[in-house]
Amino acid sequence: MAGKPSAFDGRIRAVVDAVLPEVDAGRFAAKRIAGEAVDVEAHCFTDGHDQLRVVLAWAAIGASEQHEIDMRAEPNDVWRAQFTPPVPGRYRYTVTAWVDHFASWRAELARRDEADDVRTALQLGAAMLDALVSRAGSDAPMLMEWATLLRASAADGATGMDIAAMKALALDPARAAVVLRHPDRRFSSSQSRDVTVDRQRAGFSSWYELFPRSTAAEPGHHGTFRDLEQRLPYVARMGFDVLYLPPIHPIGRVHRKGPNNRLDAEPQAVGSPWAIGAAEGGHKHILAALGSMQDFHRLLAAASKAGLEIALDLAFQCAPDHPYVQAHPTWFKHRPDGSIQYAENPPKKYQDIYPFDFESDDWRELWDELKSVVDFWIAQGVRIFRVDNPHTKSFAFWEWLISEVQRVHPNTIFLAEAFTRPKVMQRLAKLGFSQSYTYFTWRTGKQELIDYFTELSHGAGVDYFRPNVWPNTPDILHESLQSGARATFSARLILAATLSANYGIYGPTYELMESTPRGAGSEEYRDSEKYQLRHWPLDREDSLWPLIQRINRIRRDNPALQSDRTLTFCPIDNDQLIAYAKHDAASADIILVVVNLDPYHTQSGWIDIDLAVLGLSADQPYQVHDLLSEQRFRWLGPRNFILLDPNRMPAHVFKVRRHLRTERDFDYFL
Amino acid sequence: MAGKPSAFDGRIRAVVDAVLPEVDAGRFAAKRIAGEAVDVEAHCFTDGHDQLRVVLAWAAIGASEQHEIDMRAEPNDVWRAQFTPPVPGRYRYTVTAWVDHFASWRAELARRDEADDVRTALQLGAAMLDALVSRAGSDAPMLMEWATLLRASAADGATGMDIAAMKALALDPARAAVVLRHPDRRFSSSQSRDVTVDRQRAGFSSWYELFPRSTAAEPGHHGTFRDLEQRLPYVARMGFDVLYLPPIHPIGRVHRKGPNNRLDAEPQAVGSPWAIGAAEGGHKHILAALGSMQDFHRLLAAASKAGLEIALDLAFQCAPDHPYVQAHPTWFKHRPDGSIQYAENPPKKYQDIYPFDFESDDWRELWDELKSVVDFWIAQGVRIFRVDNPHTKSFAFWEWLISEVQRVHPNTIFLAEAFTRPKVMQRLAKLGFSQSYTYFTWRTGKQELIDYFTELSHGAGVDYFRPNVWPNTPDILHESLQSGARATFSARLILAATLSANYGIYGPTYELMESTPRGAGSEEYRDSEKYQLRHWPLDREDSLWPLIQRINRIRRDNPALQSDRTLTFCPIDNDQLIAYAKHDAASADIILVVVNLDPYHTQSGWIDIDLAVLGLSADQPYQVHDLLSEQRFRWLGPRNFILLDPNRMPAHVFKVRRHLRTERDFDYFL
Repeated sequence: MAGKPSAFDGRIRAVVDAVLPEVDAGRFAAKRIAGEAVDVEAHCFTDGHDQLRVVLAWAAIGASEQHEIDMRAEPNDVWRAQFTPPVPGRYRYTVTAWVDHFASWRAELARRDEADDVRTALQLGAAMLDALVSRAGSDAPMLMEWATLLRASAADGATGMDIAAMKALALDPARAAVVLRHPDRRFSSSQSRDVTVDRQRAGFSSWYELFPRSTAAEPGHHGTFRDLEQRLPYVARMGFDVLYLPPIHPIGRVHRKGPNNRLDAEPQAVGSPWAIGAAEGGHKHILAALGSMQDFHRLLAAASKAGLEIALDLAFQCAPDHPYVQAHPTWFKHRPDGSIQYAENPPKKYQDIYPFDFESDDWRELWDELKSVVDFWIAQGVRIFRVDNPHTKSFAFWEWLISEVQRVHPNTIFLAEAFTRPKVMQRLAKLGFSQSYTYFTWRTGKQELIDYFTELSHGAGVDYFRPNVWPNTPDILHESLQSGARATFSARLILAATLSANYGIYGPTYELMESTPRGAGSEEYRDSEKYQLRHWPLDREDSLWPLIQRINRIRRDNPALQSDRTLTFCPIDNDQLIAYAKHDAASADIILVVVNLDPYHTQSGWIDIDLAVLGLSADQPYQVHDLLSEQRFRWLGPRNFILLDPNRMPAHVFKVRRHLRTERDFDYFL
Repeated sequence: MAGKPSAFDGRIRAVVDAVLPEVDAGRFAAKRIAGEAVDVEAHCFTDGHDQLRVVLAWAAIGASEQHEIDMRAEPNDVWRAQFTPPVPGRYRYTVTAWVDHFASWRAELARRDEADDVRTALQLGAAMLDALVSRAGSDAPMLMEWATLLRASAADGATGMDIAAMKALALDPARAAVVLRHPDRRFSSSQSRDVTVDRQRAGFSSWYELFPRSTAAEPGHHGTFRDLEQRLPYVARMGFDVLYLPPIHPIGRVHRKGPNNRLDAEPQAVGSPWAIGAAEGGHKHILAALGSMQDFHRLLAAASKAGLEIALDLAFQCAPDHPYVQAHPTWFKHRPDGSIQYAENPPKKYQDIYPFDFESDDWRELWDELKSVVDFWIAQGVRIFRVDNPHTKSFAFWEWLISEVQRVHPNTIFLAEAFTRPKVMQRLAKLGFSQSYTYFTWRTGKQELIDYFTELSHGAGVDYFRPNVWPNTPDILHESLQSGARATFSARLILAATLSANYGIYGPTYELMESTPRGAGSEEYRDSEKYQLRHWPLDREDSLWPLIQRINRIRRDNPALQSDRTLTFCPIDNDQLIAYAKHDAASADIILVVVNLDPYHTQSGWIDIDLAVLGLSADQPYQVHDLLSEQRFRWLGPRNFILLDPNRMPAHVFKVRRHLRTERDFDYFL
């Protein structure tokens, strides 16, 4: 027979198709969270009228224990089942289908009504039981007995046994259940897909970024890890759970940058933490001015005690005086004069940074060394890495690095700091980054927010791209924040924290509403901490910290805000008002957010709520309880009035209560 | 280095993703037509700021000649190119991308404006030219000369050579074009996909089905191939190009069915042509009453001369007296008493049909024999097969059969007669069937027609599922046709012929508006030709043949109707009126169809035409010329009035003319 490999078995008739979840037909793993159910769907069918049996097998890759459950048939050849991976790791699930001749026989028998046909069917059933006795183990005697009964009854039938009685014996569900335990799976089809299962923080996290060197108690001093320890209660009190530190390594002295990125740095300039490496060490060392490795261990312990997890920055690049440059010149690109090529994107130049050359002939050595950096910090106790500019290193490298690290340490979280073209950001997420920065920082208008977050929560990326949204970063002081308007800072914070389960701010600039750019048209902060020490007046009366504390508390208390999949925008007839809801089915938690995007004027309008999506009834009143102001309103039906004065608070974050039990629930009325 | 096969090269930085066209990530081939351009799209990018080069290679599988062209970059990392497969066959195309260091160097140099940087760049360029000289063949001297010039100019530059002159020398496009011919493709990424390219008839065909045995000149006689030869001018005159014949093989005598599917057939009953095989032969033989193999060859030749191609029926099943049953008992399922299992779907029984058992241990033999049936008829000159109930034979078998047959005979067309669940029909199309029957027969309402044909022409199946739509078949006399209303027959014909590039009718029942079902609620014809001879009064005055002739002429004259991809429905404010347009860009042909679905009443309404889609101007009049009535109207703008009296003609088939050149174009006005 031409055209077929000899291993191929033409007797396989079942088809498994369109398996979900999956990314690019199995080229990448879908992402899920430990403890959350994974809904598996597949299209399974066979030729003709035969019945199928379809099972879902799943296991952590490398684990010896394999789980298997039956999938259930739904209309239109769709089969479903779910499994719940208990702990982080890489899992593989497999949908297997085969023609179930016993089930087909049962289904046909149920529709037979002529005595001769039923008798023939009983004979056929007995023959099928005979065939499976040999693999039925301790069930064999029962099946043999049943076969004998079927044959006897077929014979009795010839002398008048009642058709209904014969069918009842043959269709006995208890006996059929025994047969189910011994399927003939010789001619089965399978499709497997992988799922990367992360710990819960990968799906729900509140990040705070600060520069440790700016935490000294007194102005003009270089902050230390000991100073940072003193700062932990401040960060913890606001309700964050991840404290992310820019690079903590020795900073290069060659071409060191001065304040405001000046090339002519004074000798005492502290330089950019991203210009990593100097004579005293590189990516596995700590800047002496911050403290010792012992201090870092103390910091980790103190942070953990305060409910904070430290995230480090992985910036795979070198200052010219990084020890790698001398030790491994082949890891860098050389110019015709023998000098090493610094980073540039003409006409921009970064003379204090040497990028690695991922086309180096010694790429294996380079990859191994970079992975050893991650392993080193994991050994110190770090499990979250914010990766600086991953899109300027090779995709294959990241795919290898992340899978290798997570194979041994599945608790590790990688956040991709790639602010670049959409397909590049998507690719980084597909190949393994646990979370990704987004364009949120630049999405400030109502329609662009709706479009972007609809794409993020319902588009092609939902199975692999986890947004982590930031209203500001040390690199991005968005134009809208440069007004310094308190309402804008409040609104952007609330949007970030309620649109996305993962969000972060760069503080204390954020709560102190730092708003001055380096120059006109610039998104850089003036006197940025990237290049100099700063000292922050944390106790300033107008600080936004109480609002931050409240919004983080709301996030922790409400499961609806801990996932992105249910995000639904609500029509509201005012271009400055944006409204959306999220809900959590298990806890029946519903949050409805309305934000006034205009920082200067009171805006009002009528909101239209999709009651069905939220499980609300059209003729029962429900309560909306503003968790920011503690005001409670009683609403009825989908259409309700909203008025927001940005000078008081530019948003409502309503908890929606379906069932009003006591008079107390009606405290406040409009 | 853990986790990577040693053949893997980490220096590959380019990514090729999201290649189109494709079906299930390359599991199946997309379908196209010979002579039509295949638009290829891919997402290609690399890390960092480097430039990519992306090429499209394509070739017929097995051919020695490989074609390659550059793809062009569009915004958002999308790359495009197209190729035109000249003849039918299976093709493979490959998108290959690599980092183009020379192009990156050029792009960066263009943005440099400091003398030192430009001089360094010239040195770097010279070094790149040195590196490619060894593979540059006869271009080597020119490249060496250029490298020398670049070095000299970099040196001159040190003494004041003008930056612009240096850049002009380095960016010289003519010299760069030479470098393009010698790319360094060591670190490239590729993705390949297959395309099945069919001949034009697979994409545009008009089918007519008839029973040869009903073509005798006199009633009561068994028609022959000689009689059928006399019928060819009748079919050709109507404008069909495919004449499809139900099975022409010996018909079983065991359990032969009588008229109207009666079990108690009289001795002279002719039986069902689908009960294939008797003592005198099976699938490779011709029913003696129809004629000899020589007669069949004559018929093929005469049909070809008349512009008709004969399509045969592939019904892979056997009458109980088919020679296969004796010779190959293992190809069939046996019952406990040793008898062979006939086809059934309880409570329905088909005692005259034995299905093959595709789980037979001798499946290889069975597959080979069934393929030999196809090869046999191909050897006689047949190239179109209508496959009976493919969904009751195994999917793997069809995939193998079609690909093996088309590998040698790429002109072969297979039409899947599967009226079954959507995913099964989709799978048959994916695995290789050139055309597929559809649910059109049961889609009679306006909205269900719009939904279904929008899915067919714009849904997931467009790259593999080619609809062939039939208003009737010997198995389906739809309820709507049972009224016998001439307007319904006309409307359904016009819908089929203009909604779909491939369509067919079962005649002469259709043109003679045969409308009597076997019983109430039945879709079977009374006195169906499936079980008895019929004699048709072809010259009846009310025959629809002139309308059929006209609609087929319109289809041949208008490229817009020869493809399905441009189908667009137009809003029209009457539930009984349906309107849609198709256009062909190359010929600027536009067809606008409006059908009155109510066979009894005049209906009117306002149509809304999407002028932009059809390339019409909002302020220029255009002509709509009804190719059925020859009436011409002058319209302006998108909104126009329609009135259709079903007693005259239930449809307009307008040719839309954008440019009105002469007064003649205004013959008729509303």
